[in-house]
Amino acid sequence: MSYESTTSLKELAERILAANTIVCTSHEKPDGDAVGSVLGLVRALSETKDMHAWLLGSVPPAMEAMTGDTTWTHIGNAKKIPDLEPDLVIVLDTGAWSQLEILEEWLRARADRVIGLDHHASGDDVAPQRVVDASAAACTMLVLQLIDCLRIELDIPVAESLFGGLATDTGWFRQANADAAAFAAAARLLACGVDKDGLYRMIEETARPERLALHARALATVQWVHEGEVAIMRLTRADFAETGGRRSEVVGLVNAPLVVQGAEMSVLLVEESEGSVKASMRSKPPRVPGGPFVDVRAVATQLGGGGHMHAAGARLSGDLDAAAEAIVQALAQETA
Amino acid sequence: MSYESTTSLKELAERILAANTIVCTSHEKPDGDAVGSVLGLVRALSETKDMHAWLLGSVPPAMEAMTGDTTWTHIGNAKKIPDLEPDLVIVLDTGAWSQLEILEEWLRARADRVIGLDHHASGDDVAPQRVVDASAAACTMLVLQLIDCLRIELDIPVAESLFGGLATDTGWFRQANADAAAFAAAARLLACGVDKDGLYRMIEETARPERLALHARALATVQWVHEGEVAIMRLTRADFAETGGRRSEVVGLVNAPLVVQGAEMSVLLVEESEGSVKASMRSKPPRVPGGPFVDVRAVATQLGGGGHMHAAGARLSGDLDAAAEAIVQALAQETA
Repeated sequence: MSYESTTSLKELAERILAANTIVCTSHEKPDGDAVGSVLGLVRALSETKDMHAWLLGSVPPAMEAMTGDTTWTHIGNAKKIPDLEPDLVIVLDTGAWSQLEILEEWLRARADRVIGLDHHASGDDVAPQRVVDASAAACTMLVLQLIDCLRIELDIPVAESLFGGLATDTGWFRQANADAAAFAAAARLLACGVDKDGLYRMIEETARPERLALHARALATVQWVHEGEVAIMRLTRADFAETGGRRSEVVGLVNAPLVVQGAEMSVLLVEESEGSVKASMRSKPPRVPGGPFVDVRAVATQLGGGGHMHAAGARLSGDLDAAAEAIVQALAQETA
Repeated sequence: MSYESTTSLKELAERILAANTIVCTSHEKPDGDAVGSVLGLVRALSETKDMHAWLLGSVPPAMEAMTGDTTWTHIGNAKKIPDLEPDLVIVLDTGAWSQLEILEEWLRARADRVIGLDHHASGDDVAPQRVVDASAAACTMLVLQLIDCLRIELDIPVAESLFGGLATDTGWFRQANADAAAFAAAARLLACGVDKDGLYRMIEETARPERLALHARALATVQWVHEGEVAIMRLTRADFAETGGRRSEVVGLVNAPLVVQGAEMSVLLVEESEGSVKASMRSKPPRVPGGPFVDVRAVATQLGGGGHMHAAGARLSGDLDAAAEAIVQALAQETA
């Protein structure tokens, strides 16, 4: 079944107005947009409705600040799904059963009471009544529209949730999905009094000192291949052991070489165990709209991995040198 | 004389409408905002007026893309000031004689024909008729308002200039000066069709590979002092020689340690020559509006330097160790 809107925001608003007890939930790995969407809608409706925020997985430490003093239930940690019969369940920022495993049975049993709001291009029939808009930079953009539909006035806690989701899903407005509509929404939310600088500090400036040492090691290894258009960085198990850096602390690092003029793609190779290497790949958007770029998904797919056109990955067997060589060959085939 | 508005945008617009030949100029070290302001206004008016863009200094390579095919004169390079008697001179993004030395005499002789538009908090009486708005995130925000006053419709080249100035002066909308008005202006400019991603690539992704190696060396030296709240990084002359990195390529590097939670201030020490060290200092904005923060200007001032509350610098004599020690002592005194 194709994944697209089956109704309008106006009709979703009417379902909400007709309900009293409402559960808002999202995918199993809550990111800023999931947390922002669920908490934003719960906060916006909690004056008039009996609202329940259910997050299926743990909130990453960086996003914890976004939850503030709003109560939410960690369904993944609970022994069982809360004994609650809501009038309505709102699934936000996903429509894929694979991202809702813990709740699948519970949701299927209540299909007539499930509505959805999502900005992803693919998904399943989780919410028979749903609005899907893949052009939206973040799901919180759609939550904002829904709140407008409900004629609820924005206050700071709501605006902060929605801004947090939008900012994190657009890389703080640098990525291509940060379009005019995203900037306009951000302007509205900031005008409510959102403390953008405080939010940035709480969400983005949460590294441990060890991460800097790890990044220093990776940057020192940059090797330029493919006529200088592709950077390959390497981290050995010894690099992690000696710096005290963690695997999770390489997030974002693969992008660093893309500041170089002429760089079109960047690869980070991380030695996971003896003979196993994880490769993360990024590429730049085209110079001009519609122009050429490196499709890293195609490169990753050749190596048994996958992902998106500008962000993909694969697991490779062999050592770091073998992994680098495999990527150079896959790249040559892709760009031939 | 105090530096503030002496007139309104409406009156500036009237002066522009009454003129035919117009020179637009800015400060001697053109940054993105200076280039964007001058070229944006020249482009906006060039259909109806005889427009001349005069930039006093060289345009940094990263900003060159912003000039596109718009003709401009490099006054600093010309043997003499062009033999032109404009009806009006518009000085943008500065009102300080110290930043207009090459043109000072020429401007003083034409004071009745000089108008100004600026967003800096201090300046001189360069333009007797001027609008100064220190709350504007960039001068291009004020140019946009002036263009609105003139009822000129935005086109892509004009919007691109103004967006470029706004984006670079706000660190691509991450800095504290990126407020609701800045986001709203960005939304308007993007809606004109500005290619934000292309502009980002042209302005920000212009590094040489050597810069990565230099940054790797600096990051590997991070030393945490002042109870882990302050990071000190060092670069020796050997680091530059061995990596091939240039002094200009440390720009932005001082900010890197601020991603660490609990980091309040960061220092980059660069050995310039035997016994001479340049110190750059940055600090985070307060956690909550009005909360405590490290005033790096106060630290720098103790060491004979200066700057702003969150960005300052000083030149120190002695070696890198002596410089680090001097900063630790100045910091202790400041935060005592």
